[in-house]
Amino acid sequence: MSRVGFVGLGNMGGPMAANLAKAGHAVDVFDLMPAALAKAEAAGCASAGSAVNALANAEVFFSMLPAGRHVAGLYLGSDGQDGLLAQVPDGAILVDCSTIDPATAKRVAAAAAERGIAMLDAPVSGGTAGAENGTLTFMVGGASETLEAVRPLFDAMGANLFHAGDAGAGQTAKVCNNMLLAVHMAGTAEALALGVSQGLDPAALSEIMRQSSGGNWSLEVYNPYPGVMEGVPASREYQGGFLVDLMTKDLGLAMDTAESSGAPVPMGGLARNLYRMHAAQNNAGQLDFSSIQQLFEPKSST
Amino acid sequence: MSRVGFVGLGNMGGPMAANLAKAGHAVDVFDLMPAALAKAEAAGCASAGSAVNALANAEVFFSMLPAGRHVAGLYLGSDGQDGLLAQVPDGAILVDCSTIDPATAKRVAAAAAERGIAMLDAPVSGGTAGAENGTLTFMVGGASETLEAVRPLFDAMGANLFHAGDAGAGQTAKVCNNMLLAVHMAGTAEALALGVSQGLDPAALSEIMRQSSGGNWSLEVYNPYPGVMEGVPASREYQGGFLVDLMTKDLGLAMDTAESSGAPVPMGGLARNLYRMHAAQNNAGQLDFSSIQQLFEPKSST
Amino acid sequence: MSRVGFVGLGNMGGPMAANLAKAGHAVDVFDLMPAALAKAEAAGCASAGSAVNALANAEVFFSMLPAGRHVAGLYLGSDGQDGLLAQVPDGAILVDCSTIDPATAKRVAAAAAERGIAMLDAPVSGGTAGAENGTLTFMVGGASETLEAVRPLFDAMGANLFHAGDAGAGQTAKVCNNMLLAVHMAGTAEALALGVSQGLDPAALSEIMRQSSGGNWSLEVYNPYPGVMEGVPASREYQGGFLVDLMTKDLGLAMDTAESSGAPVPMGGLARNLYRMHAAQNNAGQLDFSSIQQLFEPKSST
Amino acid sequence: MSRVGFVGLGNMGGPMAANLAKAGHAVDVFDLMPAALAKAEAAGCASAGSAVNALANAEVFFSMLPAGRHVAGLYLGSDGQDGLLAQVPDGAILVDCSTIDPATAKRVAAAAAERGIAMLDAPVSGGTAGAENGTLTFMVGGASETLEAVRPLFDAMGANLFHAGDAGAGQTAKVCNNMLLAVHMAGTAEALALGVSQGLDPAALSEIMRQSSGGNWSLEVYNPYPGVMEGVPASREYQGGFLVDLMTKDLGLAMDTAESSGAPVPMGGLARNLYRMHAAQNNAGQLDFSSIQQLFEPKSST
Repeated sequence: MSRVGFVGLGNMGGPMAANLAKAGHAVDVFDLMPAALAKAEAAGCASAGSAVNALANAEVFFSMLPAGRHVAGLYLGSDGQDGLLAQVPDGAILVDCSTIDPATAKRVAAAAAERGIAMLDAPVSGGTAGAENGTLTFMVGGASETLEAVRPLFDAMGANLFHAGDAGAGQTAKVCNNMLLAVHMAGTAEALALGVSQGLDPAALSEIMRQSSGGNWSLEVYNPYPGVMEGVPASREYQGGFLVDLMTKDLGLAMDTAESSGAPVPMGGLARNLYRMHAAQNNAGQLDFSSIQQLFEPKSST
Repeated sequence: MSRVGFVGLGNMGGPMAANLAKAGHAVDVFDLMPAALAKAEAAGCASAGSAVNALANAEVFFSMLPAGRHVAGLYLGSDGQDGLLAQVPDGAILVDCSTIDPATAKRVAAAAAERGIAMLDAPVSGGTAGAENGTLTFMVGGASETLEAVRPLFDAMGANLFHAGDAGAGQTAKVCNNMLLAVHMAGTAEALALGVSQGLDPAALSEIMRQSSGGNWSLEVYNPYPGVMEGVPASREYQGGFLVDLMTKDLGLAMDTAESSGAPVPMGGLARNLYRMHAAQNNAGQLDFSSIQQLFEPKSST
Repeated sequence: MSRVGFVGLGNMGGPMAANLAKAGHAVDVFDLMPAALAKAEAAGCASAGSAVNALANAEVFFSMLPAGRHVAGLYLGSDGQDGLLAQVPDGAILVDCSTIDPATAKRVAAAAAERGIAMLDAPVSGGTAGAENGTLTFMVGGASETLEAVRPLFDAMGANLFHAGDAGAGQTAKVCNNMLLAVHMAGTAEALALGVSQGLDPAALSEIMRQSSGGNWSLEVYNPYPGVMEGVPASREYQGGFLVDLMTKDLGLAMDTAESSGAPVPMGGLARNLYRMHAAQNNAGQLDFSSIQQLFEPKSST
Repeated sequence: MSRVGFVGLGNMGGPMAANLAKAGHAVDVFDLMPAALAKAEAAGCASAGSAVNALANAEVFFSMLPAGRHVAGLYLGSDGQDGLLAQVPDGAILVDCSTIDPATAKRVAAAAAERGIAMLDAPVSGGTAGAENGTLTFMVGGASETLEAVRPLFDAMGANLFHAGDAGAGQTAKVCNNMLLAVHMAGTAEALALGVSQGLDPAALSEIMRQSSGGNWSLEVYNPYPGVMEGVPASREYQGGFLVDLMTKDLGLAMDTAESSGAPVPMGGLARNLYRMHAAQNNAGQLDFSSIQQLFEPKSST
């Protein structure tokens, strides 16, 4: 069993820390929100009082924060000197599970490397359900041996683990994956709307494309057309799931990443703007991202 | 066994007719090209001398032609009176396997229905290899009982059979599927190029996305990045496969179909124009459609 | 003064014929709608009873019809033999002012040329107000000498006359112009919405861009933002003007034209799909095309 | 006459400072490049030895730097404390002429305002020729009275002066304008390529659209088609002018700005990606931005 630190106990980080505790690890946790702390304590974690304290005795230290500036602030501090990196116990491994821009991930990992500290970027997919059920997917950037050292802890929180490459590669892989997800979801919604506009049954068309060369994850497990698939957001008025606002945020990371290496991303760029228009036209920021289907449907003209 | 007529013996129609003959059916064939006729005769078909003759004794009559105007010309004639519809034997079923616009398919089927003739539109996917190996996929529009009557013949030529709906629905399903295919292929190529521009290995990134929510048919069996997957066009300089010019033609049908019902298809429309630009910039009309990967890669500046 | 025939007396053709009569020409008219005929007679035209009769004594014969199929039907007939081309008086000039696809315009002009008949394609811009005030713009395809022969009649109906090139070139020029118009209108609306989202005053931003390198016709005379410019559709809730449905139709012609010569039109293609989405999301088909502004504005969430 | 400080003497800043000196103002300058300093001294400026010294006696202080991080670094310092803001003489006005993201401009101006310092953001357009000839356009954000106080200095460097609004509005206006410029330039290139693919003469089509509703700045003074207009980059193989790499940078600012207020910018986003693809396909980063024309032209296939 390991001694673990965990900072950031939100909808994702909270259940992840709880799963580590459930697997028998000693988990020192910190969060700014008392309620989140209380929940983690109830799940068997120990409240450490501060991020520094959560790190103090850790063999592996996890962070799960909203954005790149929080991650840079935590590890580097405001002036690059007063962050956690200056306080890492000998031999401890840092694992940032936040979804942030690859550039910040590389910068923080490089600062850690300068001090001889092993660090991984390990963003997740799978949503809050995956966090609670311990079935997350981790996309990991950093050294293989570091990943292997942390593997048992990943296993306690997730079902799939991918090594994407060096520092920052986990973030890049997630950014690429989610951009492609947005593209095929928008494309699927558009194809279904086209078929329906020509009189086809959306379920029949979905099944044909799923088994043919149009096949993709959206058609397989996350059909965006209402009434075609049970148990998905499309069949409960797009409540829950992966919110449009979060997809738009991830697409913003993809655009920033493309900017930094000059890569053309026309399909991803259009998908991002369709999501923006959908949010504006349909007040859809808090709906599941498969609700992009609505952008292709005629409004009634009453 | 059935008595079958077959008109249009090109790269697709020729092997399809041959598979019908191989399955023991009597196949009367016609094509304007003597070489195609000779090949069909060598495969056990009987040359009928004309389309009318190929139809004369048929229980089921197949056509496999390049475009909507050929199909309309064959069945309706130039003035709507002198086409094959006027010569159909009692009880014979017509099956058009051409990939054409749904509007023409509906128009011809409606003219057949007026004369009490049962007709199916049944475009295929699977390419010339699928036609030769008898593993095509058929997407069928028309009455269920007509489809069932023809099923044994479809089985002799293909591995998958989908009933998409009423007359024209087979064409619509194919148009929707291929538009979605173009979208996720372009999106996949773009995501891979983005990852590679950030230093990721294309094979590692492909595998991660394939198993994650970015998963789609391109990643599963038709990876567009050179060297990632064996036996696909990307690994033989995009020779063979499904040509850019054919994908562009199918996307043209998708745009026409969208026009006819006023459906917005922004992702499909952009994919179509990316394919056009790819053809123009890279002289790529005769390359496989996964070569769209090239449009996202920097040219060397030597 | 000339003896003129005129077929197609709708919102555009009616006032055009009236202006010819007002200029002193003898105008024989025909339309299927009795009300349109009555109005033309009240304006000084003579009802000819049929298209053939309107042509019978004409030195110059004009047509103003909704789409390519009507133009082909009128001049070529259903079988290419029974159209007006067979009845053209010696030396008479044909002028089609309809906005149609360049391919049909070229086909009809070629059939005329085979019979030794001079023909122009001369689509107009300027809307119903331009038709009534005699201030239309004509974009003309065909021989220069034919254009010169008709010039006095064009002058009676319009303020601007451009010779675009050979047969069909008038249609192509109009298609290109209107595609560019859709692009800069959408781009202008988007730029204004971006500025406003950042707190800028739309009038100040409009004026800056109008005088800078962003300057275009939309900013000059047709500002899409409500309240910025007086007397434009944006300042009367987008009533009147050039309807979204008509712009969408013209963009459809542009897409068909691009298809026929394999030209990539990514910006025009996206503009077309934005217009489609606008029509669907905002039930905007009958609003002025500058209402695309609405597609970029957040809906209130009450 | 005023006492002026000027920091950043590159291709733009150098001639701007020189024009201030030529107009009789006392100009204290600083740049990291000795050659740039020497040139400014030759033009009548006084080398101040440091940015702080250039500011020390200034009534108005100008900066002209490459990007937002340089501007923030100059005025705020690395920790927000050690920047120039702490050294501004009583009553001196700060004017940042750099083209940067509006968010940074607002942040720096807010920090200045906290200290009671008046500041303007005043990005320019007009290129190096405009800087040398004193014909720049300034788009200014900040208080009207501050703008009026600086007006004589702006007049010494430029021909046009626009007040866009409050702090940051100058940057926002420039971002909006340049995004719209990219859109209508790409749209113009695409429309010309479509016309040419149909046999039209690019000069004739340009003239028709220029005088019609397609009219825009590109057609008016900066035609992208080779051979149509004299003296523009298109007629000298796209050498000189406003580089693709700079347009791409400005479009990156536009995307960041859109991100910050959630505005949908589909046309601008596509234009940005077309420019990226053009740079990649045609190695065009150092060509004038009107070279986007090349992206729409078929390559010869020899």
